[in-house]
Amino acid sequence: MQTKGLVIVNTGDGKGKTTAALGIALRAWGHDMRVCVIQFLKNGNLRSGESRAAKKLGIEWHALGDGYTWSSRDIERSRAKALAAWQTAQEAIASERYDLVVLDEFTYLLHLDWLETGEVVAWLQEHRPPAMHVVITGRHAPAALVEMADLVTEMREVKHPYATRKQVAQPGIEF
Amino acid sequence: MQTKGLVIVNTGDGKGKTTAALGIALRAWGHDMRVCVIQFLKNGNLRSGESRAAKKLGIEWHALGDGYTWSSRDIERSRAKALAAWQTAQEAIASERYDLVVLDEFTYLLHLDWLETGEVVAWLQEHRPPAMHVVITGRHAPAALVEMADLVTEMREVKHPYATRKQVAQPGIEF
Repeated sequence: MQTKGLVIVNTGDGKGKTTAALGIALRAWGHDMRVCVIQFLKNGNLRSGESRAAKKLGIEWHALGDGYTWSSRDIERSRAKALAAWQTAQEAIASERYDLVVLDEFTYLLHLDWLETGEVVAWLQEHRPPAMHVVITGRHAPAALVEMADLVTEMREVKHPYATRKQVAQPGIEF
Repeated sequence: MQTKGLVIVNTGDGKGKTTAALGIALRAWGHDMRVCVIQFLKNGNLRSGESRAAKKLGIEWHALGDGYTWSSRDIERSRAKALAAWQTAQEAIASERYDLVVLDEFTYLLHLDWLETGEVVAWLQEHRPPAMHVVITGRHAPAALVEMADLVTEMREVKHPYATRKQVAQPGIEF
Protein backbone atom coordinates (compact mmCIF):
# COMPACT_ATOMS: atom_id res chain seq x y z
CA MET A 1 0.00 0.00 0.00
CA GLN A 2 1.61 3.19 -1.14
CA THR A 3 1.10 6.33 0.87
CA LYS A 4 -0.36 9.27 -0.96
CA GLY A 5 0.40 12.45 0.92
CA LEU A 6 -2.61 14.61 1.65
CA VAL A 7 -2.95 18.36 1.90
CA ILE A 8 -5.29 18.97 4.82
CA VAL A 9 -6.82 22.32 5.71
CA ASN A 10 -8.51 23.09 9.04
CA THR A 11 -10.31 26.40 8.80
CA GLY A 12 -13.36 28.23 10.19
CA ASP A 13 -13.88 30.48 13.18
CA GLY A 14 -14.35 27.70 15.75
CA LYS A 15 -11.91 26.02 18.08
CA GLY A 16 -9.99 22.91 17.18
CA LYS A 17 -8.07 23.88 14.05
CA THR A 18 -4.63 23.84 15.64
CA THR A 19 -5.72 21.25 18.16
CA ALA A 20 -6.74 18.78 15.47
CA ALA A 21 -3.44 19.39 13.69
CA LEU A 22 -1.70 18.53 16.96
CA GLY A 23 -3.76 15.36 17.15
CA ILE A 24 -2.59 14.37 13.67
CA ALA A 25 0.99 15.10 14.72
CA LEU A 26 0.57 12.91 17.80
CA ARG A 27 -0.98 10.10 15.76
CA ALA A 28 1.82 10.32 13.20
CA TRP A 29 4.40 10.30 15.97
CA GLY A 30 2.71 7.17 17.31
CA HIS A 31 3.37 5.56 13.94
CA ASP A 32 7.05 6.62 14.10
CA MET A 33 6.55 9.11 11.32
CA ARG A 34 8.83 12.13 11.07
CA VAL A 35 6.95 15.26 12.03
CA CYS A 36 7.77 18.95 11.76
CA VAL A 37 5.50 21.70 13.07
CA ILE A 38 5.90 25.34 12.12
CA GLN A 39 3.80 27.88 13.97
CA PHE A 40 3.31 31.16 12.16
CA LEU A 41 1.54 32.95 14.96
CA LYS A 42 2.87 31.75 18.27
CA ASN A 43 6.41 32.51 19.24
CA GLY A 44 8.94 30.60 21.26
CA ASN A 45 8.27 32.64 24.38
CA LEU A 46 4.81 31.20 24.81
CA ARG A 47 5.39 28.14 26.90
CA SER A 48 2.46 26.29 25.47
CA GLY A 49 1.47 22.75 26.34
CA GLU A 50 1.91 21.75 22.73
CA SER A 51 5.48 23.02 22.45
CA ARG A 52 6.37 21.43 25.79
CA ALA A 53 4.84 18.16 24.69
CA ALA A 54 6.65 18.31 21.34
CA LYS A 55 9.95 18.84 23.11
CA LYS A 56 9.30 15.84 25.32
CA LEU A 57 8.33 13.76 22.27
CA GLY A 58 11.18 14.84 20.06
CA ILE A 59 8.87 16.36 17.46
CA GLU A 60 10.60 19.15 15.59
CA TRP A 61 8.84 22.36 16.54
CA HIS A 62 9.36 25.91 15.30
CA ALA A 63 7.32 28.67 16.89
CA LEU A 64 8.38 31.45 14.57
CA GLY A 65 5.54 33.93 14.84
CA ASP A 66 5.54 37.38 16.33
CA GLY A 67 2.68 36.72 18.74
CA TYR A 68 -0.78 37.90 17.87
CA THR A 69 0.09 39.78 14.75
CA TRP A 70 -3.15 41.71 14.32
CA SER A 71 -2.37 43.60 17.50
CA SER A 72 1.27 44.05 16.53
CA ARG A 73 2.70 47.52 16.99
CA ASP A 74 5.38 46.87 14.40
CA ILE A 75 3.61 45.25 11.51
CA GLU A 76 6.68 45.30 9.28
CA ARG A 77 8.58 43.23 11.80
CA SER A 78 5.68 40.82 12.10
CA ARG A 79 5.53 40.50 8.33
CA ALA A 80 9.26 39.87 8.07
CA LYS A 81 9.08 37.16 10.73
CA ALA A 82 6.15 35.50 9.01
CA LEU A 83 7.92 35.49 5.66
CA ALA A 84 11.06 34.05 7.25
CA ALA A 85 8.86 31.32 8.77
CA TRP A 86 7.49 30.55 5.29
CA GLN A 87 11.07 30.14 4.10
CA THR A 88 11.70 27.67 6.94
CA ALA A 89 8.53 25.85 5.92
CA GLN A 90 9.62 25.69 2.29
CA GLU A 91 12.95 24.23 3.30
CA ALA A 92 11.25 21.65 5.55
CA ILE A 93 8.81 20.62 2.81
CA ALA A 94 11.36 20.47 0.03
CA SER A 95 13.89 18.60 2.21
CA GLU A 96 11.87 15.36 2.09
CA ARG A 97 13.03 14.77 5.66
CA TYR A 98 9.47 14.57 7.02
CA ASP A 99 6.35 12.50 6.59
CA LEU A 100 4.17 15.28 8.00
CA VAL A 101 4.63 19.03 8.07
CA VAL A 102 2.15 21.22 9.95
CA LEU A 103 1.86 24.90 8.98
CA ASP A 104 -0.07 26.24 11.93
CA GLU A 105 -1.99 29.53 11.45
CA PHE A 106 -0.47 29.83 8.01
CA THR A 107 -3.61 31.11 6.32
CA TYR A 108 -3.34 34.55 7.83
CA LEU A 109 -0.25 35.23 5.69
CA LEU A 110 -2.52 34.67 2.69
CA HIS A 111 -5.42 36.56 4.19
CA LEU A 112 -3.21 39.59 4.84
CA ASP A 113 -1.72 39.32 1.33
CA TRP A 114 1.75 38.87 2.69
CA LEU A 115 1.97 35.94 0.33
CA GLU A 116 0.09 35.47 -2.93
CA THR A 117 -2.18 32.41 -2.60
CA GLY A 118 -1.72 31.34 -6.22
CA GLU A 119 2.05 31.31 -5.81
CA VAL A 120 1.89 29.34 -2.57
CA VAL A 121 -0.44 26.76 -4.14
CA ALA A 122 1.81 26.44 -7.18
CA TRP A 123 4.87 26.11 -4.99
CA LEU A 124 3.27 23.35 -2.92
CA GLN A 125 2.12 21.51 -6.03
CA GLU A 126 5.63 21.59 -7.42
CA HIS A 127 7.73 20.96 -4.31
CA ARG A 128 5.73 18.86 -1.86
CA PRO A 129 7.02 15.29 -1.98
CA PRO A 130 4.16 13.02 -3.11
CA ALA A 131 4.11 10.96 0.09
CA MET A 132 4.32 13.94 2.47
CA HIS A 133 1.24 15.10 4.36
CA VAL A 134 0.91 18.84 4.88
CA VAL A 135 -1.61 20.23 7.35
CA ILE A 136 -2.48 23.93 7.12
CA THR A 137 -4.56 25.66 9.77
CA GLY A 138 -6.16 29.06 10.20
CA ARG A 139 -9.26 31.12 9.55
CA HIS A 140 -10.25 32.39 6.13
CA ALA A 141 -8.61 29.68 4.02
CA PRO A 142 -8.63 31.16 0.50
CA ALA A 143 -10.68 29.39 -2.18
CA ALA A 144 -7.62 28.45 -4.23
CA LEU A 145 -6.12 26.68 -1.23
CA VAL A 146 -9.36 24.83 -0.54
CA GLU A 147 -9.50 23.90 -4.22
CA MET A 148 -6.02 22.38 -4.10
CA ALA A 149 -6.43 20.61 -0.76
CA ASP A 150 -7.49 16.98 -0.42
CA LEU A 151 -9.32 17.29 2.88
CA VAL A 152 -10.88 20.47 4.22
CA THR A 153 -12.76 20.84 7.48
CA GLU A 154 -14.46 23.92 8.78
CA MET A 155 -14.51 24.21 12.55
CA ARG A 156 -17.71 26.05 13.32
CA GLU A 157 -18.25 27.65 16.70
CA VAL A 158 -21.51 26.46 18.21
CA LYS A 159 -20.88 27.64 21.75
CA HIS A 160 -17.90 29.32 23.33
CA PRO A 161 -17.48 29.78 27.08
CA TYR A 162 -15.72 33.14 26.79
CA ALA A 163 -18.65 34.53 24.92
CA THR A 164 -21.21 33.31 27.39
CA ARG A 165 -19.53 33.91 30.70
CA LYS A 166 -16.41 35.24 32.32
CA GLN A 167 -13.75 32.62 31.80
CA VAL A 168 -10.03 32.99 31.20
CA ALA A 169 -8.00 30.86 28.82
CA GLN A 170 -6.70 27.80 30.59
CA PRO A 171 -3.54 25.73 30.33
CA GLY A 172 -4.10 22.37 28.66
CA ILE A 173 -7.23 23.54 26.91
CA GLU A 174 -6.34 26.76 25.16
CA PHE A 175 -2.57 26.54 24.97
CA MET B 1 -5.99 31.63 39.14
CA GLN B 2 -8.37 28.80 39.80
CA THR B 3 -9.06 26.29 37.11
CA LYS B 4 -12.66 25.88 36.13
CA GLY B 5 -13.13 22.58 34.39
CA LEU B 6 -14.87 22.77 31.05
CA VAL B 7 -17.20 20.36 29.32
CA ILE B 8 -16.16 20.39 25.67
CA VAL B 9 -18.10 18.79 22.84
CA ASN B 10 -16.71 18.15 19.35
CA THR B 11 -19.50 17.15 17.03
CA GLY B 12 -20.53 17.37 13.36
CA ASP B 13 -20.00 15.11 10.37
CA GLY B 14 -16.53 16.39 9.48
CA LYS B 15 -13.10 15.15 10.41
CA GLY B 16 -11.20 16.33 13.44
CA LYS B 17 -13.51 15.56 16.35
CA THR B 18 -11.37 12.83 17.87
CA THR B 19 -8.23 14.38 16.50
CA ALA B 20 -8.85 17.67 18.27
CA ALA B 21 -9.58 15.77 21.48
CA LEU B 22 -6.20 14.07 21.05
CA GLY B 23 -4.62 17.47 20.60
CA ILE B 24 -6.14 18.64 23.88
CA ALA B 25 -4.84 15.47 25.54
CA LEU B 26 -1.37 16.14 24.16
CA ARG B 27 -1.45 19.74 25.28
CA ALA B 28 -2.61 18.73 28.75
CA TRP B 29 0.09 16.09 28.93
CA GLY B 30 2.58 18.82 28.02
CA HIS B 31 1.40 20.70 31.11
CA ASP B 32 1.87 17.57 33.25
CA MET B 33 -1.86 17.18 33.70
CA ARG B 34 -3.32 13.75 34.41
CA VAL B 35 -5.19 12.49 31.36
CA CYS B 36 -7.52 9.56 30.81
CA VAL B 37 -8.98 8.69 27.40
CA ILE B 38 -11.87 6.28 26.97
CA GLN B 39 -12.77 5.26 23.45
CA PHE B 40 -16.30 3.96 23.02
CA LEU B 41 -15.96 2.89 19.42
CA LYS B 42 -12.45 1.67 18.82
CA ASN B 43 -11.25 -1.47 20.47
CA GLY B 44 -7.85 -2.52 21.73
CA ASN B 45 -7.13 -4.58 18.66
CA LEU B 46 -6.88 -1.56 16.45
CA ARG B 47 -3.26 -0.56 16.70
CA SER B 48 -3.93 3.07 16.11
CA GLY B 49 -1.33 5.82 16.12
CA GLU B 50 -3.13 7.49 18.99
CA SER B 51 -3.12 4.44 21.23
CA ARG B 52 0.51 3.76 20.42
CA ALA B 53 1.39 7.36 21.17
CA ALA B 54 -0.58 7.27 24.43
CA LYS B 55 1.27 4.17 25.51
CA LYS B 56 4.59 5.85 24.79
CA LEU B 57 3.48 8.95 26.68
CA GLY B 58 2.01 7.17 29.65
CA ILE B 59 -1.46 8.58 29.04
CA GLU B 60 -4.11 6.24 30.42
CA TRP B 61 -5.99 4.85 27.46
CA HIS B 62 -8.98 2.54 27.31
CA ALA B 63 -10.21 1.41 23.91
CA LEU B 64 -13.36 -0.33 25.08
CA GLY B 65 -15.56 -0.30 22.00
CA ASP B 66 -16.68 -3.16 19.88
CA GLY B 67 -15.37 -1.78 16.62
CA TYR B 68 -17.74 -0.05 14.24
CA THR B 69 -20.92 -0.76 16.08
CA TRP B 70 -23.39 0.13 13.33
CA SER B 71 -22.10 -2.78 11.28
CA SER B 72 -22.05 -5.06 14.31
CA ARG B 73 -23.54 -8.49 13.82
CA ASP B 74 -24.20 -8.83 17.52
CA ILE B 75 -25.74 -5.56 18.59
CA GLU B 76 -26.48 -6.75 22.10
CA ARG B 77 -22.82 -7.49 22.67
CA SER B 78 -21.89 -4.07 21.28
CA ARG B 79 -24.41 -2.43 23.56
CA ALA B 80 -23.14 -4.31 26.61
CA LYS B 81 -19.56 -3.29 25.84
CA ALA B 82 -20.55 0.32 25.38
CA LEU B 83 -22.45 0.39 28.67
CA ALA B 84 -19.49 -1.21 30.45
CA ALA B 85 -17.28 1.51 28.97
CA TRP B 86 -19.65 4.16 30.36
CA GLN B 87 -19.22 2.56 33.77
CA THR B 88 -15.44 2.82 33.39
CA ALA B 89 -15.89 6.46 32.39
CA GLN B 90 -18.06 7.17 35.42
CA GLU B 91 -15.46 5.65 37.71
CA ALA B 92 -12.69 7.69 36.08
CA ILE B 93 -14.66 10.93 36.35
CA ALA B 94 -15.83 10.38 39.91
CA SER B 95 -12.37 9.27 41.06
CA GLU B 96 -10.93 12.81 40.84
CA ARG B 97 -7.69 11.18 39.72
CA TYR B 98 -7.59 13.13 36.44
CA ASP B 99 -7.45 16.68 35.20
CA LEU B 100 -8.85 15.70 31.82
CA VAL B 101 -11.08 12.82 30.76
CA VAL B 102 -11.85 12.27 27.08
CA LEU B 103 -14.97 10.30 26.14
CA ASP B 104 -14.29 9.57 22.51
CA GLU B 105 -17.27 8.74 20.26
CA PHE B 106 -19.50 8.79 23.31
CA THR B 107 -22.40 10.55 21.62
CA TYR B 108 -23.47 7.49 19.68
CA LEU B 109 -24.55 5.81 22.93
CA LEU B 110 -26.96 8.71 23.32
CA HIS B 111 -27.93 8.75 19.66
CA LEU B 112 -28.78 5.03 19.78
CA ASP B 113 -30.70 5.52 23.03
CA TRP B 114 -28.45 3.10 24.86
CA LEU B 115 -28.20 5.82 27.50
CA GLU B 116 -30.74 8.49 28.28
CA THR B 117 -29.19 11.90 27.58
CA GLY B 118 -30.95 13.63 30.46
CA GLU B 119 -29.59 11.08 32.91
CA VAL B 120 -26.04 11.38 31.55
CA VAL B 121 -26.17 15.18 31.75
CA ALA B 122 -27.51 15.04 35.30
CA TRP B 123 -24.87 12.53 36.28
CA LEU B 124 -22.07 14.69 34.88
CA GLN B 125 -23.43 17.77 36.58
CA GLU B 126 -23.49 15.97 39.89
CA HIS B 127 -20.26 13.95 39.74
CA ARG B 128 -17.75 15.78 37.60
CA PRO B 129 -15.16 17.40 39.86
CA PRO B 130 -15.33 21.20 39.32
CA ALA B 131 -11.73 21.47 38.09
CA MET B 132 -11.89 18.48 35.74
CA HIS B 133 -12.16 19.00 31.99
CA VAL B 134 -14.29 16.49 30.10
CA VAL B 135 -14.13 16.27 26.31
CA ILE B 136 -16.90 14.40 24.51
CA THR B 137 -16.73 13.62 20.81
CA GLY B 138 -19.03 12.17 18.20
CA ARG B 139 -21.70 13.01 15.65
CA HIS B 140 -25.23 14.00 16.54
CA ALA B 141 -24.55 15.52 19.96
CA PRO B 142 -28.01 15.80 21.55
CA ALA B 143 -29.36 19.25 22.32
CA ALA B 144 -29.36 18.67 26.08
CA LEU B 145 -25.66 17.84 25.98
CA VAL B 146 -24.90 20.94 23.91
CA GLU B 147 -26.95 22.96 26.36
CA MET B 148 -24.92 21.73 29.31
CA ALA B 149 -21.51 22.01 27.63
CA ASP B 150 -19.23 25.03 27.95
CA LEU B 151 -17.61 24.81 24.55
CA VAL B 152 -19.14 23.17 21.50
CA THR B 153 -17.59 22.96 18.06
CA GLU B 154 -19.12 21.49 14.97
CA MET B 155 -16.62 19.98 12.54
CA ARG B 156 -18.14 20.51 9.13
CA GLU B 157 -16.93 18.56 6.13
CA VAL B 158 -16.00 20.92 3.33
CA LYS B 159 -14.07 18.45 1.21
CA HIS B 160 -13.16 14.85 1.78
CA PRO B 161 -10.66 12.92 -0.32
CA TYR B 162 -12.51 9.61 -0.11
CA ALA B 163 -15.58 11.18 -1.58
CA THR B 164 -13.76 12.76 -4.47
CA ARG B 165 -11.30 10.08 -5.48
CA LYS B 166 -10.11 6.61 -4.67
CA GLN B 167 -8.05 6.87 -1.54
CA VAL B 168 -7.68 4.47 1.36
CA ALA B 169 -7.43 5.47 5.01
CA GLN B 170 -3.85 6.11 5.95
CA PRO B 171 -1.83 5.59 9.11
CA GLY B 172 -1.01 8.82 10.90
CA ILE B 173 -3.92 10.65 9.31
CA GLU B 174 -6.97 8.50 9.84
CA PHE B 175 -5.91 6.30 12.74
